[in-house]
Amino acid sequence: MTREDAQGLDLADPLARFRDAFDLPSGVIYLDGNSLGPPPLSAHERLERVSRREWGEGLVRSWNSAHWIEAPQRVGGKIARLIGAQANEVAVADATSVNLFKLAAGALSLRPGRTTILSETGNFPTDLYALQGLVALLGDRARLKTVAPEDLVAAIDADTAVVVLTHIHYKSARRWDLPALTAAAHAKGALMLWDLCHTAGAVAVDLNAAQADLAVGCGYKYLNGGPGAPAFLFVAECHQAAIVSPLWGWMGHAEPFAFEDGYRPASDIRGLITGTPPILGLAALEAGLDLQLEADPALVEAKGLALANLFIARVEAAAADPALGLAGPRDAAARGLHVSFTHPEGYAIVQAMMARGIVGDFRAPDIARFGFSPLFLSYAEVWDAARALADILAARAWDRPEFRVRAAVT
Amino acid sequence: MTREDAQGLDLADPLARFRDAFDLPSGVIYLDGNSLGPPPLSAHERLERVSRREWGEGLVRSWNSAHWIEAPQRVGGKIARLIGAQANEVAVADATSVNLFKLAAGALSLRPGRTTILSETGNFPTDLYALQGLVALLGDRARLKTVAPEDLVAAIDADTAVVVLTHIHYKSARRWDLPALTAAAHAKGALMLWDLCHTAGAVAVDLNAAQADLAVGCGYKYLNGGPGAPAFLFVAECHQAAIVSPLWGWMGHAEPFAFEDGYRPASDIRGLITGTPPILGLAALEAGLDLQLEADPALVEAKGLALANLFIARVEAAAADPALGLAGPRDAAARGLHVSFTHPEGYAIVQAMMARGIVGDFRAPDIARFGFSPLFLSYAEVWDAARALADILAARAWDRPEFRVRAAVT
Repeated sequence: MTREDAQGLDLADPLARFRDAFDLPSGVIYLDGNSLGPPPLSAHERLERVSRREWGEGLVRSWNSAHWIEAPQRVGGKIARLIGAQANEVAVADATSVNLFKLAAGALSLRPGRTTILSETGNFPTDLYALQGLVALLGDRARLKTVAPEDLVAAIDADTAVVVLTHIHYKSARRWDLPALTAAAHAKGALMLWDLCHTAGAVAVDLNAAQADLAVGCGYKYLNGGPGAPAFLFVAECHQAAIVSPLWGWMGHAEPFAFEDGYRPASDIRGLITGTPPILGLAALEAGLDLQLEADPALVEAKGLALANLFIARVEAAAADPALGLAGPRDAAARGLHVSFTHPEGYAIVQAMMARGIVGDFRAPDIARFGFSPLFLSYAEVWDAARALADILAARAWDRPEFRVRAAVT
Repeated sequence: MTREDAQGLDLADPLARFRDAFDLPSGVIYLDGNSLGPPPLSAHERLERVSRREWGEGLVRSWNSAHWIEAPQRVGGKIARLIGAQANEVAVADATSVNLFKLAAGALSLRPGRTTILSETGNFPTDLYALQGLVALLGDRARLKTVAPEDLVAAIDADTAVVVLTHIHYKSARRWDLPALTAAAHAKGALMLWDLCHTAGAVAVDLNAAQADLAVGCGYKYLNGGPGAPAFLFVAECHQAAIVSPLWGWMGHAEPFAFEDGYRPASDIRGLITGTPPILGLAALEAGLDLQLEADPALVEAKGLALANLFIARVEAAAADPALGLAGPRDAAARGLHVSFTHPEGYAIVQAMMARGIVGDFRAPDIARFGFSPLFLSYAEVWDAARALADILAARAWDRPEFRVRAAVT
């Protein structure tokens, strides 16, 4: 494929118009939307409106007049449309790790007598940490078992309360078969809790069709919700009345403004909310979602995979460095929207790319990771990025001391 | 005191200049800064800079270049100066209820063998809910005991792991003697956990002088940090190495970007952080703090109490309604910066005030609550507000059907 071919794909791209809706600096090819999505222009405007008009003019009255109090459910309802859930099954609250703690504990409450939380080794660390923290707190009432992915289905047993998996792996982009794994968990009477951090806004999923029980995800990757955007949680309607959250707070109370001494959880998704909603973060996230919802999810996924495939093909065709390896599945159907290459000099390679205006990221110990957000990237940009990576490898352009200086965030 | 006297106090007020630093609508007397502080003008500017420049131009690189990754500790260090803590003892993270859960569980980890969490009946509900949720999760390893405030000191015993109190009561504004209660807890070997939601930015406290162990608080009241601003937590340095948080996440890991499978908590205040920092919320909160830190905390408290005293005196002098009662202490030294009156028609009275541009709030079942934020209120405004309340009571101006329509948030 020539660069002209890539430009031809851009001309025919039904999602091309979305690029103009984002605020992206010139001279940058942004292959890190899977770490932090860029701002929709509407997010700037939305934040200004919330700050100046709703907060400044409306003051505390905006909890009612600007519908702040409903924001966790309203914004959650928009995420629901992207993940195959009902509007009343998703709320936005807290951070992903906190929500994972809530739903893993909630899963134990739904499966009394079972003690095992099952996950995979090498899952995104914060997911494992949240689960480790929960079992450390619960003592002998719960245990965390982690097994290699290929051993996972066989490890589900009669003691398994919940299986916790990240749908798309943060390093390899390997995609679990969501319906199949959910069915495998159910076959043993276990619940299924999905982490959709690299899924929502990227890859089409249908939680209800798969009869998934629980899910969490973040707002700042493909949903373009802003740095540290609040996270979301999904609880299937059939579980909402019975699930017990471990984190009780006034926003989860059946009547928050009755100010009762005793907690009575709301019997709907609100029961999983804890503290006061983070309105500024919710506002930016809602702007990202409103934009995302204008795009056909099937087209989003197809373009993202096409971009990723183009990148892999061009890098492998041009790069003569035998130290470079594709970290994830070659089969696009088994992959999410990012591509990871292993290389002993992965960190320096990412810095050398950055010096050319191409932003990817590094994941220890040796992974150079590039994300292909379909709403703002063009085929020509990806062609150029692949060419740059091949050039850097061929010329060993990464081999400079300044590219080895580690930053706090890698 | 005449209105001219009040204007005279404004002319001599060393904090008067701060009013111009806030974005407040004309025609409003805002007596609800204790529920949601108004925006500093600098918060609008800060949010625009973070959104357009740091997020838009810097993209993911801003985690390093704009120092986002350090924000929880940097902003926490600014709060520390307002509450008598060291910079390394405070972090900003999550919601108050979540932080209370973390620190109450952490207190149990610091007092093995003790099982009682002691608090007062009528404490702010979300505090009780967070504690109820924790003990429900822990089963027989912990119990929550609540007693009337006058019985609290006597109830501290050898099984008490931690005493959890709100320094200034959300309804009555009653102020606990923070050093005395902390000493009483220590005398029985218990830890002291303070909720400083109505304290920080309002009333001068010195946690280190009192040898307080733990504290939490919110950012959206007197700190003017924005709707649903992230909360803070304080852990005395002497406890940081030993305390075990129940909410483990990558931001609390000793090396977050090592991406290890096993959790190793940071041994400093970072060990109490869980998920990715909410950068937009942190930015607005930091603007509020930077403004607050320009003011002398002793002057802030003195003016707030003087405003509250003026309000009480003027209302009581003018109001002939025997159904009106002062809910909190008459002695200013035993009070925070808000004033609550009980009245069977409290809700309608607050609405009638609102119709005249005077914003207070209602707390069930019968409390009309008015907050006296010292940085943006004038004595003349408070004089006018008291006059309006007296007029409304005298004329029974609250007795209209539209003032009885309950909003979602009261």
